[in-house]
Amino acid sequence: MRNDILQKLMETIVARKDTAVESSYVAKLFSKGEDAILKKVGEEATEVLLAAKSGDKQHLVYETADLWFHCMVLLAQHGMSVNDVLEELAQRVGVSGLDEKAGRKSNAS
Amino acid sequence: MRNDILQKLMETIVARKDTAVESSYVAKLFSKGEDAILKKVGEEATEVLLAAKSGDKQHLVYETADLWFHCMVLLAQHGMSVNDVLEELAQRVGVSGLDEKAGRKSNAS
Amino acid sequence: MRNDILQKLMETIVARKDTAVESSYVAKLFSKGEDAILKKVGEEATEVLLAAKSGDKQHLVYETADLWFHCMVLLAQHGMSVNDVLEELAQRVGVSGLDEKAGRKSNAS
Amino acid sequence: MRNDILQKLMETIVARKDTAVESSYVAKLFSKGEDAILKKVGEEATEVLLAAKSGDKQHLVYETADLWFHCMVLLAQHGMSVNDVLEELAQRVGVSGLDEKAGRKSNAS
Repeated sequence: MRNDILQKLMETIVARKDTAVESSYVAKLFSKGEDAILKKVGEEATEVLLAAKSGDKQHLVYETADLWFHCMVLLAQHGMSVNDVLEELAQRVGVSGLDEKAGRKSNAS
Repeated sequence: MRNDILQKLMETIVARKDTAVESSYVAKLFSKGEDAILKKVGEEATEVLLAAKSGDKQHLVYETADLWFHCMVLLAQHGMSVNDVLEELAQRVGVSGLDEKAGRKSNAS
Repeated sequence: MRNDILQKLMETIVARKDTAVESSYVAKLFSKGEDAILKKVGEEATEVLLAAKSGDKQHLVYETADLWFHCMVLLAQHGMSVNDVLEELAQRVGVSGLDEKAGRKSNAS
Repeated sequence: MRNDILQKLMETIVARKDTAVESSYVAKLFSKGEDAILKKVGEEATEVLLAAKSGDKQHLVYETADLWFHCMVLLAQHGMSVNDVLEELAQRVGVSGLDEKAGRKSNAS
């Protein structure tokens, strides 16, 4: 149903990157540069944690959406797309794939 | 193409929550409890920042996937789905919608 | 020279907790509650990371001070003091003590 | 009483930077490079948040000490000292000074 929502959102974000619409939140964020975007990613990650601890499920969903949204702005800033992330995640689907990949990552970091 | 990848991944994660497969990374994470999941979210957010600063685009994609993956584990832990996040993001698509919503959020936080 | 600065700062913070000075940044932060303080801790930690990556040493010092300052507000909010943190750190001084303690922590987390 | 603990700890950290003691946690961290130190700062900040939410005051003190400890390793990595942070904090002590400084920062970030 909502399967192309990420792609549509990505297109909107990228369009904002290329046009200097002063009234646009995303355009403003791009104009401030990468560190401004990264600060938002850090802030939203913190808010996801606090939302989870609050036990308010709707708040958790809202803050997760905010975090993902700002991740997409960050991807656009680096010329990457949400599809690159989906491709990466696709490799983790399936019983063995998921565990093997995640396990390797877990050991490496 | 990859439009149902998030749903498939979510199903896999939820399946791990309900079955106690000891060899599964996700099942182990669930068994450690919420704080263990939140620590991973915090760690992966940090890695997204460092990947962005490194300028390695593939690394940024990889770490973003890791962050989203652990967000999905967190959602599952709270009985929510990736579709809830997509629904929330759907409300932000479109020129006016995106800015209005994001702007309101920006002021609120 | 500056050896009692942390104690003096702590006293100032605690004083703000007990008096509702509306014009005070710290008093306002306390009045917003724990999550507002924790958001600042998360934000300042992000800024420490970005300052370190920027290579600007003075900026790193400034952001580290900001992070520690908000940690002290958090401690005060929980009825703890900077001296409790100094006591904990005191146990890590010394060759064997430092490594043993840090190593144990590293394994545990 | 414990007023010189930060300086003593700083000396120990710096000493580890210059000597390649393989068994030393700090020496190992330095050898892994800046990103490894920054990951620890991010991790420990997350643990401070979770400790605060847990309501366990002793745990909060412990994790705050861990965060400050790794900040000191980061400072050493950049050739700065804990005294630089104390100097910065010294400028924030006092009623007007504290609020003015913190308020300015709050607006800027």
